[in-house]
Amino acid sequence: MGLIYIILVYDVSIERVSKVNKFLKRYLIWIQNSVFEGDIKESTLTSMKKGLMKIIESDDKILIYQLKSDTYIERIKMGNQDQDINNVI
Amino acid sequence: MGLIYIILVYDVSIERVSKVNKFLKRYLIWIQNSVFEGDIKESTLTSMKKGLMKIIESDDKILIYQLKSDTYIERIKMGNQDQDINNVI
Repeated sequence: MGLIYIILVYDVSIERVSKVNKFLKRYLIWIQNSVFEGDIKESTLTSMKKGLMKIIESDDKILIYQLKSDTYIERIKMGNQDQDINNVI
Repeated sequence: MGLIYIILVYDVSIERVSKVNKFLKRYLIWIQNSVFEGDIKESTLTSMKKGLMKIIESDDKILIYQLKSDTYIERIKMGNQDQDINNVI
């Protein structure tokens, strides 16, 4: 039951953005409009992927990067990141 | 002049998507609508960031993950990834 660190980016149709966003908030931390991150158990990741498959449709895309940990990641943020992300959607 | 592996995600206003996208294609590989990846020299990354700062405006956001390499990243793609991404924008 190893923990995996993931970065998830979604590019989904505007009609489903809110639904996908709400769903992902149950599992991960919202970082930027289309980006989530977090530690997740392998079994939980499987459930999350199953749940996403039920929500997304033909042209939607989701990319998940799996990493051993976030120790070696350096983040650079550009643009106005101070804004309350809850106002975006 | 070390090479860095980066994952870049942009969330920019629809008016600037095409411009940001074209600009980033000079430096990186387009992976998914709002995601680019690639090896980049530190000095080139600096130029790229300067160029982006000139294009983006107040509510635009760009997140860059810097990694030592992409060796330990596993990618999971969900949704229709076969589609020609050149048709998206």
